[in-house]
Amino acid sequence: MSINCYQPQQHSATMTQNSTSERTIKLADYLFARLGQLGIQSVFGVPGDYNLRLLDFVEPSGLNWIGTCNELNGAYAADGYARINGLGALITTFGVGELSAINGIAGAYAEKAPVIHIVGTPSRALQDSRTLVHHTFADGEYRRFAAMHAQVTVAQANLIDPRTAAEQIDSTLQQALIHSRPVYLQVPDDMVDVMIPASNLEAKKIQVPPTPRLKYETSILTTVLERIYSAQRPLIFVDGESRALDILPQVDELVKITGWPTWTSTFGKGLVNEQLDNVYGFYAANYGSEPETAYFDSADLVIVLGPHYSNTNTLGYTTIPKQEVSISFSGTAIQIGKDTHRDYSIQQFLTQLLESLDSTRIPKITGPPKPQVDFNHITKSDAITQDDFYRFVDRLFREGDIVATETGTASYGGRTFRLPPRTRMFGAVTWLSIGYMLPACLGAALAQQETNKYKPVNGTGQGKGRLFLFIGDGSLQMTVQEISTMIREKLDIVLFIINNAGYTIERAIHGRKQAYNDIAPWRHLQALSFFGGDEEEAARNNFSARTFGELEEVLQSERIQQGSGLRIIEVFMGREDCQGLLRTLMNTQIAQDAQQLR
Amino acid sequence: MSINCYQPQQHSATMTQNSTSERTIKLADYLFARLGQLGIQSVFGVPGDYNLRLLDFVEPSGLNWIGTCNELNGAYAADGYARINGLGALITTFGVGELSAINGIAGAYAEKAPVIHIVGTPSRALQDSRTLVHHTFADGEYRRFAAMHAQVTVAQANLIDPRTAAEQIDSTLQQALIHSRPVYLQVPDDMVDVMIPASNLEAKKIQVPPTPRLKYETSILTTVLERIYSAQRPLIFVDGESRALDILPQVDELVKITGWPTWTSTFGKGLVNEQLDNVYGFYAANYGSEPETAYFDSADLVIVLGPHYSNTNTLGYTTIPKQEVSISFSGTAIQIGKDTHRDYSIQQFLTQLLESLDSTRIPKITGPPKPQVDFNHITKSDAITQDDFYRFVDRLFREGDIVATETGTASYGGRTFRLPPRTRMFGAVTWLSIGYMLPACLGAALAQQETNKYKPVNGTGQGKGRLFLFIGDGSLQMTVQEISTMIREKLDIVLFIINNAGYTIERAIHGRKQAYNDIAPWRHLQALSFFGGDEEEAARNNFSARTFGELEEVLQSERIQQGSGLRIIEVFMGREDCQGLLRTLMNTQIAQDAQQLR
Repeated sequence: MSINCYQPQQHSATMTQNSTSERTIKLADYLFARLGQLGIQSVFGVPGDYNLRLLDFVEPSGLNWIGTCNELNGAYAADGYARINGLGALITTFGVGELSAINGIAGAYAEKAPVIHIVGTPSRALQDSRTLVHHTFADGEYRRFAAMHAQVTVAQANLIDPRTAAEQIDSTLQQALIHSRPVYLQVPDDMVDVMIPASNLEAKKIQVPPTPRLKYETSILTTVLERIYSAQRPLIFVDGESRALDILPQVDELVKITGWPTWTSTFGKGLVNEQLDNVYGFYAANYGSEPETAYFDSADLVIVLGPHYSNTNTLGYTTIPKQEVSISFSGTAIQIGKDTHRDYSIQQFLTQLLESLDSTRIPKITGPPKPQVDFNHITKSDAITQDDFYRFVDRLFREGDIVATETGTASYGGRTFRLPPRTRMFGAVTWLSIGYMLPACLGAALAQQETNKYKPVNGTGQGKGRLFLFIGDGSLQMTVQEISTMIREKLDIVLFIINNAGYTIERAIHGRKQAYNDIAPWRHLQALSFFGGDEEEAARNNFSARTFGELEEVLQSERIQQGSGLRIIEVFMGREDCQGLLRTLMNTQIAQDAQQLR
Repeated sequence: MSINCYQPQQHSATMTQNSTSERTIKLADYLFARLGQLGIQSVFGVPGDYNLRLLDFVEPSGLNWIGTCNELNGAYAADGYARINGLGALITTFGVGELSAINGIAGAYAEKAPVIHIVGTPSRALQDSRTLVHHTFADGEYRRFAAMHAQVTVAQANLIDPRTAAEQIDSTLQQALIHSRPVYLQVPDDMVDVMIPASNLEAKKIQVPPTPRLKYETSILTTVLERIYSAQRPLIFVDGESRALDILPQVDELVKITGWPTWTSTFGKGLVNEQLDNVYGFYAANYGSEPETAYFDSADLVIVLGPHYSNTNTLGYTTIPKQEVSISFSGTAIQIGKDTHRDYSIQQFLTQLLESLDSTRIPKITGPPKPQVDFNHITKSDAITQDDFYRFVDRLFREGDIVATETGTASYGGRTFRLPPRTRMFGAVTWLSIGYMLPACLGAALAQQETNKYKPVNGTGQGKGRLFLFIGDGSLQMTVQEISTMIREKLDIVLFIINNAGYTIERAIHGRKQAYNDIAPWRHLQALSFFGGDEEEAARNNFSARTFGELEEVLQSERIQQGSGLRIIEVFMGREDCQGLLRTLMNTQIAQDAQQLR
């Protein structure tokens, strides 16, 4: 809000010619045209009085405006959108808006989602005169929020000069592409419709610059080929930065051409086709099957793609392949054992590697047996358990779907999903800001719908891709209001709410019985109605299950199998029920508590 | 969450003696004992795996733990609590938690609410070895978030050393008291139960240090007294930083002893007794009554208390008294005309001034007439309008209540409330982060309940104070989930939701008909039930009104007059209806749109 009266001006994206015959365009039109060129179709955010005039240009430029309930949710949504679409954008207002969003921007930085954070700021006149306006500390200091964003973005620009604005926009956007990380653009209110040179729009494409061919490239390539041909117990380990490296087609081909045992990290899950015989899915180290761990541990060659070695993505560093047997592709570096070779385009190198591979010389490897899953031990009246729930429901997923698991028991459990091909998955990686996943799914589902990228290729006749989100009741409370935007945008989402009465993951870590891990109980199945869904539809799109029998009925229901829009399934599970690593932690807690009672 | 297994240790606040006979105490016990000494009874926040062990100490130390649905809401709540209680505290976890909260901390900085932001951080071992853990950027850099907080807090400390931790805590807390602004404390996970010296706890009180008596103090006092005695058209202008200066009793006495016409700013509203004959309430300059403006403009002496001259708190700088006739008390400075006299204790100076005042020499002044309010022009079937709504409902308020208006049409309208004595009011001032007010009211209502500070003194027989919050439907969406905490904590709150279909304040500024100022429609009266209220009670505590007749019935109802707990009144008003300055802005928009159609 503001007390300044603006003089709104009519705008149009038509370019004009100035006296020196150079074509010009309004700054906002230039910026949004660039976003469109880079494949962005929707922009997220919240209006505020320093960005209103900027927002006037969004829809006329052909972009959809997706107003979110608050800015943090908008940032999360832009991040989810970027992970599916390749790039996302968020518009906030100075101070209050951008700082509300900053945790989402930080998460995008940590996990490599390229989000363009555009902030509408006070006019240059107000800033230059250090006027004491709202959304500041009334101290005349206008640069604090940019300084804060410099900690969480790879490039920043303050667009105060029409002579350089176009180049600033271009180079900032390019940095987002290069690093697959967020950038920050400030647009003063009076710069929105200032005319700037338009020539770059057609003459200069924004793209990742090519990497010069390096002197030693051939010898490195030869080394890698020889290691492949001579391998006896090789494996491929796909980690999540492969997405940011834009090498998923190359990874797919490598997995198929070698037929080698392939695992992913949490972050990498969903980036390779888990239906292939040689793909084992998530590597769980000590929490997985013994034969797999034995194979992994005794490998003499591990091809590592897009490594991201935080404690949480590596189960406490236990899934990191041994350096001495690894050839690792990350950023612009190829690491062979202890030697790092820098300044390569990984995409280019892998392409060349695949072209050079003599498939007859690739060792044929039989990997360890895959563990079999069955549900013979379950009866209909059994309470739903974390152990069996995830593999029980994963038959719902179809090619083209997106599957997401929020940080908590869901993110641990969801690692055991067996995914259909071309099914993208989001799990908790490193930033682990609970509350992230619900708005991120708003963004991801929207990108899925817009791009059709993840639709089934061979026409299963089952319509477009859906999104399945698994979220705990504690996480849900953080950002629940974005359910209303999912409803408004008519997205096809199935939302599993795991009701286990609080922060179970925290109980497993510390404070199992402490009240601080409790939450207020909500009536989850009233969400669709409260947040504005059609009341009759809402009633039909609500489900709940306490036993596997009830769950089976829900999974078979027409609304879940073939329905559309947002559907909510509340699943009740034990307050201390968890599996995998979390179970080990919880058991330690239980043992300690028992000891104290003695 | 974390993959580290902690070894929980039994703790107790009992002090122990070390070898040199110095008494020691666990760091967390020390910290929470200090908060208790400073009058904090409840602490807000969200658990996260780097603060769990710290949280173990909260309740044993006698503090209440108030878990909020997310960290931004926690920060807002701590701010609201601080404004009523004098000091508030928030506990978050490293990275994700503290950055989610940072916009709330920034708001507390802007509007001078002393909030202690305590962050649980990874252990010193992890930090020292630059281990790549979750809630970081997996780059070994642990200091980014402190750097960001340095922009929005007046003091910061990282408690990594038991030798200095006590002094660091003390001096950081003292800075919060001195500046009435937020501070930042990092507690590594392994420092929580480290023993530190306890002696300060009893030997050294944390307080604002005294100001030395200054050489010129007597002559300044004489000057001020002479100006008071010789005034012909004097007035008192109470602004909001008076709260932070801790001079409200002195202000009250000055207003009573002089009997001079007194106005407040938005920020100052509720800090003086509006039932006194000489108190006019909010000074609206061009949007108020002509005789008041005429008096204000022709004053020959304006005593200004706690000025805060942002554009929004001064209606675009139109309510700032002329410098040449002003004696202004702010921070530690007394400004007489253009001369600034520094390093005074304003509290001490005003106390001395009041002691020195010869009441017989104070000019008796008759102020301008007060505008009369009546509702004769309203009939029962009239739709509710912004113009009349606020004065229509203000008879609900009783001594001891708190009244809050969220940024938007409510904050503009609420300036016209006539408040009973000892009724505190929060309005939109400078930070104006929409979404703030609902969680802030959670904090304020809790402080109100705990302290009894604002209970009626002369026993009206009507029970304890309530809180009335007026909030628009757009703002509500930002932070709506904290309704569940209001329910859980059984706070006596009446929530007026102004349903005008979107961001009306933004429509008044720009984009009157633009879709970006729309929001998804919600079923507000399902909130009590969705967020876990008792279902039968919830049904009875819901109200709605579209006409003044309906509103009158609601106001008269037993549940509103005498009820307890959270009650919701949905009031429907026009999409473009607003009053005061906002109406002027909206009319400008309408005129411009009409012109464009021609």
